[in-house]
Amino acid sequence: MSLPDAFHAIAARVNNWGRWGADDELGTLNLITDEVVRAAVACVGPGRRVPLAVPLRRDGVQTGAIPGRVDPLHAMVQLNQELFGPGTVACSDDVVTMGLQAGTHWDALAHVSHSGRLYNGRPAGTVTAHAGAAFASIAAVRHLVSRGVLLDVARARGTGRLPGGHAVVPEDLEAAEELAGVRVAGGDVVLVRTGQMRLLLAGDRHAYAYPSPGLSIRTPEWFHARDVAAVAADTLTFEIFPPEVADLWLPVHALHLVEMGMPQGQNWNLEELSTACGETGRYAFLLAATPEPFTGGTGAPVAPVAVL
Amino acid sequence: MSLPDAFHAIAARVNNWGRWGADDELGTLNLITDEVVRAAVACVGPGRRVPLAVPLRRDGVQTGAIPGRVDPLHAMVQLNQELFGPGTVACSDDVVTMGLQAGTHWDALAHVSHSGRLYNGRPAGTVTAHAGAAFASIAAVRHLVSRGVLLDVARARGTGRLPGGHAVVPEDLEAAEELAGVRVAGGDVVLVRTGQMRLLLAGDRHAYAYPSPGLSIRTPEWFHARDVAAVAADTLTFEIFPPEVADLWLPVHALHLVEMGMPQGQNWNLEELSTACGETGRYAFLLAATPEPFTGGTGAPVAPVAVL
Amino acid sequence: MSLPDAFHAIAARVNNWGRWGADDELGTLNLITDEVVRAAVACVGPGRRVPLAVPLRRDGVQTGAIPGRVDPLHAMVQLNQELFGPGTVACSDDVVTMGLQAGTHWDALAHVSHSGRLYNGRPAGTVTAHAGAAFASIAAVRHLVSRGVLLDVARARGTGRLPGGHAVVPEDLEAAEELAGVRVAGGDVVLVRTGQMRLLLAGDRHAYAYPSPGLSIRTPEWFHARDVAAVAADTLTFEIFPPEVADLWLPVHALHLVEMGMPQGQNWNLEELSTACGETGRYAFLLAATPEPFTGGTGAPVAPVAVL
Amino acid sequence: MSLPDAFHAIAARVNNWGRWGADDELGTLNLITDEVVRAAVACVGPGRRVPLAVPLRRDGVQTGAIPGRVDPLHAMVQLNQELFGPGTVACSDDVVTMGLQAGTHWDALAHVSHSGRLYNGRPAGTVTAHAGAAFASIAAVRHLVSRGVLLDVARARGTGRLPGGHAVVPEDLEAAEELAGVRVAGGDVVLVRTGQMRLLLAGDRHAYAYPSPGLSIRTPEWFHARDVAAVAADTLTFEIFPPEVADLWLPVHALHLVEMGMPQGQNWNLEELSTACGETGRYAFLLAATPEPFTGGTGAPVAPVAVL
Repeated sequence: MSLPDAFHAIAARVNNWGRWGADDELGTLNLITDEVVRAAVACVGPGRRVPLAVPLRRDGVQTGAIPGRVDPLHAMVQLNQELFGPGTVACSDDVVTMGLQAGTHWDALAHVSHSGRLYNGRPAGTVTAHAGAAFASIAAVRHLVSRGVLLDVARARGTGRLPGGHAVVPEDLEAAEELAGVRVAGGDVVLVRTGQMRLLLAGDRHAYAYPSPGLSIRTPEWFHARDVAAVAADTLTFEIFPPEVADLWLPVHALHLVEMGMPQGQNWNLEELSTACGETGRYAFLLAATPEPFTGGTGAPVAPVAVL
Repeated sequence: MSLPDAFHAIAARVNNWGRWGADDELGTLNLITDEVVRAAVACVGPGRRVPLAVPLRRDGVQTGAIPGRVDPLHAMVQLNQELFGPGTVACSDDVVTMGLQAGTHWDALAHVSHSGRLYNGRPAGTVTAHAGAAFASIAAVRHLVSRGVLLDVARARGTGRLPGGHAVVPEDLEAAEELAGVRVAGGDVVLVRTGQMRLLLAGDRHAYAYPSPGLSIRTPEWFHARDVAAVAADTLTFEIFPPEVADLWLPVHALHLVEMGMPQGQNWNLEELSTACGETGRYAFLLAATPEPFTGGTGAPVAPVAVL
Repeated sequence: MSLPDAFHAIAARVNNWGRWGADDELGTLNLITDEVVRAAVACVGPGRRVPLAVPLRRDGVQTGAIPGRVDPLHAMVQLNQELFGPGTVACSDDVVTMGLQAGTHWDALAHVSHSGRLYNGRPAGTVTAHAGAAFASIAAVRHLVSRGVLLDVARARGTGRLPGGHAVVPEDLEAAEELAGVRVAGGDVVLVRTGQMRLLLAGDRHAYAYPSPGLSIRTPEWFHARDVAAVAADTLTFEIFPPEVADLWLPVHALHLVEMGMPQGQNWNLEELSTACGETGRYAFLLAATPEPFTGGTGAPVAPVAVL
Repeated sequence: MSLPDAFHAIAARVNNWGRWGADDELGTLNLITDEVVRAAVACVGPGRRVPLAVPLRRDGVQTGAIPGRVDPLHAMVQLNQELFGPGTVACSDDVVTMGLQAGTHWDALAHVSHSGRLYNGRPAGTVTAHAGAAFASIAAVRHLVSRGVLLDVARARGTGRLPGGHAVVPEDLEAAEELAGVRVAGGDVVLVRTGQMRLLLAGDRHAYAYPSPGLSIRTPEWFHARDVAAVAADTLTFEIFPPEVADLWLPVHALHLVEMGMPQGQNWNLEELSTACGETGRYAFLLAATPEPFTGGTGAPVAPVAVL
């Protein structure tokens, strides 16, 4: 079994291997230039900050369906401990065990491989248990601040939440652009809102996880044409799940991460942002979304904030 | 044994309990208004981004001296796993165990208590093993974007690194202000550079940890007078360690976190920022430094970025 | 609210505080003398070994209902890693995160307190986040080898599995003794079989957890009268759950661990043992069941083996 | 680079692949028959129990030299928590993160591969991050109770501790047999004492780790000739380290685990046992040493107990 021709045809059209050099580990994040950042800063109006992360906690996003991807287990190792003797200043310290992709996160380019290859043609075997991702790990990102654009597909379609079977297609993205009054440009980070997060916020993580609306296999070409730097969504699976094409699992992951070298964000809470953008009419903003720099990490938690 | 009168005298002068209401969990972060954020945005010049976090890895900051505060242990639970059958798209997933205060982090207000009390007079016992910090946990922060000001004390004193026994006093801060050509104002996040991070970057985590230059017990009043929102430093201990006053351990922690309700940052790498500020002459910038929202966390990792 | 008089009346009758000295941390394990061990050895007939632990794995016993008690998360840190260069001997290494009480385990005496006290009257506050249990932790046990006796209550009542609401009473234990042809004696470790484990083995951890048959509040006095060293059962909750007496939660835990100082075992798989005892007619055997010696642990995994 | 001919020559002489069938995962543990267990039981004299595990704690055996093999990190998730309301019975619960090979442990056969093969010729690739060891994991062991024999090499050589450069050779084992007055026989578990543990007990884990006395490459043939079931030692590295033959790293691991299919134990504390055997003159005993049954584990902690 291997990936179908239809996949490879798209892959050929969006492939960025070598575009930024043979040793590049950043992929489309290279598109975030100083100029893009200045444009992002220029978007800020009232100065309102909107956080986009879900809380990191035991009772979080995960259902157990993804093996080993565990919600944060928080535990205490010091509890008002008077380390220097009775009556002295007391400290509390905590430890956590979690899957790096468990909550609101970025996938590193090394998170996915197909046909034995990672982004830029590197062998999949450069990811090891010993060192994690030796190439294109999340630590390579260093900083991720750019212009963010909310493409509120749910709102553009006149609904609070897209149904589970809805594949978000380029026409949806363009309708959302029109609603926003913004044209997605090179270096932008696109936030795609399906409204699926409402299920999680309502306490039903199983319904949130599956079935899920999400990006169609037709969208990578659109993001490629616009030179988007990164895309994040308000779902667990990012792309539509179960997939549009029978037996073609996670094609958007493979196109984005492996072929384009474009990071993906999952489990982003875009509900408060949707409200704020609607209230202010500002759908483009400064987005600060630098992932935690785990050496070798194939992904990392992020606490993104939009500044409107 | 209890805290000395000298401590209580300062505490009385900087105390913010009730200032933002009896239920407030944000403390001085309340000082970051929309207006402050707009001023921060106005500081951005070329659009250069400078990351301030140290890598999160096994071989990180910790020496073992702080019980239970462990560097990240990174391990793999999927390695190019073809979850949907041979030849399909393959994923790698990782898990991590770490102390929330192990790397570049913010202390939550609930991280420290003295005399049985947290910030705003809440009982220390509101931090439990069961739930972590029920009051003033790191998750209360939601977003932390403001104007950042680098006070490069080492540079202002004409050295690359302050010696271990150097207590950073208000006069040092003001000399650094003069060097910067910036006056610290309400809502600012102040980054205090001692140069101690150079020891860690050179591979000597023990020398980095101890002895350490750091903030003097005289500085909380200065930060209070300026209505600073938060302070971060490039050391493990934040304040001078061992302490200036015999047997008075961690007084600055207690004054900032408990009395003022002001978050503290530790293990921030300010070396690249020092160079960038020197090169551009810009010591005030937009700072994005939102902590990971661990429910109940008494601290959290952060991946801060300065935008110059 | 406090514990009812009925509880305190039983507590007074079974209390062992001071029986083995004011500093004793072993409780009823003191009853396992060399002589008892020799008697245990004398029980061995054919030499057949029967393991009593359930597998330690992600998909284990826990349902999430007990906060923080997580099934083992197994992850790899080395995978056929040729540590000394290509072509050399390769090693695989793994790490695990788990609740100490997640699988087949012993509760340490320090696992439970009531009215602010642990076994032998020690303050509950001797258990801290910093050090775990400073008194009567699982590491105090050192070794646990004795005569084991299977009291197969389910079989004695002619059923494969007791219903969820069945409180195992002294009459049940005596009927099982009669079936076994063994009289429980001083220093014995009693294994109480309800058959509830069959639900877990059939894949239904929720039904296994709740509702659960288990020991009645009437049994501690019986164990006390017989000078039993420890008791283990094939259920999650050990005692009947929900409880027999409204609003009296976990009374058997408090009587055994706090009052008597008697360790309890949970999630023991007694199915294969039941078969083996039935086939051989041997219900008394040598039991090797030493818990892992976690310093400060309030419980620990154990891999018990019965030697018939 | 590959393993030298000298290694392969020994490998050919001790290889057990196919001896117990093509699907066998137990290796030499098959040699522990009911008859062997009866003989073990017959060794018990006074009934004295001697524990052989080192405490499991943060400040344990590991120095950081073996990547990812971390000492237990113990943390609290409940601390005298009155789960059912104020005044009710209170519980403390703890979690741990640790390397499965961090303390006193058994290596599973799958812990080591060479030339791409595990025991019984299985591909090394059957160990994955996803599932751990699919073949010959520690969970396959189920029970490990047999006759134990202490070969007190240090004592036989008239010293408390062998020097770091001492390779334990067959002549050492035979001298220790003579001291013991016991002949090692089929199915025995041999415990080899070097006295190196004294360094750890004295608080010097670095000296304990390296350099280390240990088994010579000449010993696997001796164990093979005697049909030993398993071998454990009181050192970190088990075999002499650095190795006897330049650039031939871990040959004994490869011979025992891969070729013979014989489990190895490390970090066993044999000091108290040495004393007990010396006092009683009993060097053969009943040994209960069942590893914790981690599904997929390439090793596991064990709390062994000798019953003299």
